[in-house]
Amino acid sequence: MVLNAVGREIPEEVAGRKLVPFAGAFKTLPCKRKAAPLIKHIGRDDRKLVPSLEEAIRRVGLKDGMTISFHHHLRNGDGVINLVVDTIASMGIKDLRLAQVALFPVHEPIIEHLKNGVITRIEGSINGPVGLYASAGKLKAPVVLRSHGGRTRAVEADDLHVDVAFVGAAMADDYGNCNGMYGPSAFGPISYSMIDALYADHVIVLTDNLVDYPATPLSIDQSRVDYVVEVDSIGDPKGIESGTTKITSSPTRLKIARYVIEVLRHSGLVKDGFSFQAGAGGISLAVVKYLGELLEEEDVIASFAMGGTTRFLVDILEKGRVKKILDAQAFDLASLDSLRNNPNHVEVSAYMYANPHTRGAIVNRVDTGFLGATEVDLDFNVNVNTHSDGMMLHGTGGHSDVAAGSKLTFITVPLYRGRLPIIVDKVTNVTTPGETIDVVVTDAGIAINPRRKDLMEKMEGTGLPIRSIEELYEEAISITGKPEKPEFTDDIIGIIEYRDGSTIDVIRKVKGYEYGG
Amino acid sequence: MVLNAVGREIPEEVAGRKLVPFAGAFKTLPCKRKAAPLIKHIGRDDRKLVPSLEEAIRRVGLKDGMTISFHHHLRNGDGVINLVVDTIASMGIKDLRLAQVALFPVHEPIIEHLKNGVITRIEGSINGPVGLYASAGKLKAPVVLRSHGGRTRAVEADDLHVDVAFVGAAMADDYGNCNGMYGPSAFGPISYSMIDALYADHVIVLTDNLVDYPATPLSIDQSRVDYVVEVDSIGDPKGIESGTTKITSSPTRLKIARYVIEVLRHSGLVKDGFSFQAGAGGISLAVVKYLGELLEEEDVIASFAMGGTTRFLVDILEKGRVKKILDAQAFDLASLDSLRNNPNHVEVSAYMYANPHTRGAIVNRVDTGFLGATEVDLDFNVNVNTHSDGMMLHGTGGHSDVAAGSKLTFITVPLYRGRLPIIVDKVTNVTTPGETIDVVVTDAGIAINPRRKDLMEKMEGTGLPIRSIEELYEEAISITGKPEKPEFTDDIIGIIEYRDGSTIDVIRKVKGYEYGG
Repeated sequence: MVLNAVGREIPEEVAGRKLVPFAGAFKTLPCKRKAAPLIKHIGRDDRKLVPSLEEAIRRVGLKDGMTISFHHHLRNGDGVINLVVDTIASMGIKDLRLAQVALFPVHEPIIEHLKNGVITRIEGSINGPVGLYASAGKLKAPVVLRSHGGRTRAVEADDLHVDVAFVGAAMADDYGNCNGMYGPSAFGPISYSMIDALYADHVIVLTDNLVDYPATPLSIDQSRVDYVVEVDSIGDPKGIESGTTKITSSPTRLKIARYVIEVLRHSGLVKDGFSFQAGAGGISLAVVKYLGELLEEEDVIASFAMGGTTRFLVDILEKGRVKKILDAQAFDLASLDSLRNNPNHVEVSAYMYANPHTRGAIVNRVDTGFLGATEVDLDFNVNVNTHSDGMMLHGTGGHSDVAAGSKLTFITVPLYRGRLPIIVDKVTNVTTPGETIDVVVTDAGIAINPRRKDLMEKMEGTGLPIRSIEELYEEAISITGKPEKPEFTDDIIGIIEYRDGSTIDVIRKVKGYEYGG
Repeated sequence: MVLNAVGREIPEEVAGRKLVPFAGAFKTLPCKRKAAPLIKHIGRDDRKLVPSLEEAIRRVGLKDGMTISFHHHLRNGDGVINLVVDTIASMGIKDLRLAQVALFPVHEPIIEHLKNGVITRIEGSINGPVGLYASAGKLKAPVVLRSHGGRTRAVEADDLHVDVAFVGAAMADDYGNCNGMYGPSAFGPISYSMIDALYADHVIVLTDNLVDYPATPLSIDQSRVDYVVEVDSIGDPKGIESGTTKITSSPTRLKIARYVIEVLRHSGLVKDGFSFQAGAGGISLAVVKYLGELLEEEDVIASFAMGGTTRFLVDILEKGRVKKILDAQAFDLASLDSLRNNPNHVEVSAYMYANPHTRGAIVNRVDTGFLGATEVDLDFNVNVNTHSDGMMLHGTGGHSDVAAGSKLTFITVPLYRGRLPIIVDKVTNVTTPGETIDVVVTDAGIAINPRRKDLMEKMEGTGLPIRSIEELYEEAISITGKPEKPEFTDDIIGIIEYRDGSTIDVIRKVKGYEYGG
């Protein structure tokens, strides 16, 4: 065991994987060469369109023990992962490693394939039911949780070697050119598959909208694709929006959003050329909406916003208050028209968005981002992966990427949820290190990271309720009481990999927890 | 010496380079892994915009013996290669390998740097003056001539390792996002630098149009770029057009264009979904124009055209007779508006266009292409690199790529030029193997490759002047006389690499030739 830079005990090795302890947000630098897949050749007369998914899987030679990957653009409407894993199961292939970007409640059927041994390892985000299952520690190896940028880093560095990438496409032609923008299942950018298409040994495109060659825009182009399969449906794009597209109506949460805006107003950042990371979820949407108003009030033209894109962000673009949207993910269907038709609304790869080990990610150019949390602690460390009860229920998304990149990173959280304090003494698990968090905004006040004395000074005389994180903690537990913490076993069920590939925390199994589903 | 599949004597090794003899157009398959450059890291606070080209060159650590690369999109208007090589020379760095896509007459000043040892080797096309110099055999190693697709293959396979790629951009921001589409020196697609940006150890963007972050479209994105330098000018875009944008007014050449159209009309290919490779130069432009008329007459909607793009091709798009243009190179400035504004006019990489060793290049999907030649012989082998006098004066361009990919490849040539027959018994050098050529069209008649009996049958009863290649040859020399052939020394001054990396021919030095410039 080694104590890493956020004070977590990290074993040297888990299930055959050597762990590099987290050394600080900007300390672990790349030291490898990029993955070097075999050069492949598709001849002039070769065809890529195959009559069935089984046939495509057979042709790429998927075997026991291999790694398969998927994007998560259809979110809770995704139909591809279940379809592919069912098909693989029916072919008798097993012991696979699932390297999806993220799973959602719709992927609950995957649990059956975890039980029957078709899938035995997972490296990717697990939101919801599969997380509950994996929390019981029944997989062959701990789940590896990575940020969006960290995942692209891992694929490029061959730390996550994908044998077969399955790419659900809203539009594709018979030679593999594809995108997520057009068709009955249009979901927007296809950014998260781009890195897999570049490095996976084999790439299979699945589409429910096969069009004449050449399909454009060329979000992923033919030179990266081995086979194309037509399927009935890649999913239900309405699932993209589940729970993410309505502005909160809670006065508590609206207050938090207002506080963010006021801190921003006084931060000195909001001037022409300003940039921000937008997101979805109730508070973030409110912040985006209010930020649009702030830009109007201050007569500022922002240079760009990095999406997660919603109609609220598109509205700011259309009003001319932000010059461009860089988009890696659509959070509502209303924003798709803008992506399709507005040349200033531009699809970008997840790699360009957030990879720390490249020649400069977009997050490096973001002035501010507003992020959520399941817990924040007195060191400003943030947990988004587990709940206070120790259950592993959420992916990291772009959380630690945006926090590391942006000049002013907000965590927006209520002081407590139900009987649980959100500001805690020590987070159950660390996803994002406190050194990359600047401000924690709650309904009960605003805590500024002591590292940011400059910001503290700027807030003087603004009348904003600036408090210490300790005060917020005390207030939280004065209301909720000090909750009992779960007891953990020594079994490691999850590895929280920081974006640079080091281990920022491991997730241990809660004592006595058995999956009851 | 080994006799290769087109009967050329290929040494096993030249200047330390082992040669693989050409074995047939589709016989040499990839057997390597992709190049694996070091993973690099640019920190959140690092800046890429540097005050001078010298500074950028210093920072990337350019050293004696390294390889530098350039695109050729500005063609005879390029200002980047001369500027960079002059700068490197002034810094005292020498013995470099120049891996440009192509040189033009404007690059004549490079000859000085060949003489003074700043550049000692060239792997790239050399059109004009530098070709005349190199023909005298004064370089340290033979010039390596590659097709557009073959060059991307070589870079990806690390057969051509680029240390520093210099990318002239018509628009760029301070973080390296760039394109060729907007600005005073706009030249269109920036397709030929894309592969270098992916694999070069260092990438420097030069621009005369530095714009606010983020510059879009993201033809090459920030994650591939190390440094950005602002320069007074990257060149004169009018140079793109030199000699390529006027339809021939020669009745002889117009007749050739008409013959191509008539063969196409009877080929059975011209139906909905038809596709073609367009080009520039007098005859090709006429063919494109007539082809537009043919599509109207036959009421056919073509699926796509692969550019080299000119206003004649754009005109077909705008008339709705072709659905899309895939564009790797602009041959006139009039076509830029279409590329900028028409979503069906799409920039593609040279890699996607023509690389034989990938998962399917665009050329594989092209029905027909019309190509030029300096010589064609009785085996239908085509020379585009040397003249009958043995001088090495032209690059391969996409010639052998399109020939290999397209279903019906035309060579369009006059029977003779001045006192030189163009149809010869044996080409001085082979660029493109006869097995990939279907029809040779001259003003004196049309020769169909005997391999294409199907096509021969289709031409029966059409009244077209179908003749054997031998008949054309006899007629040519009956007019010009049988020209004396140059005598060659054993010195090899050039290697003509086929698109798959094998050697289709070597270029030997003409006996007694000295560079007089």
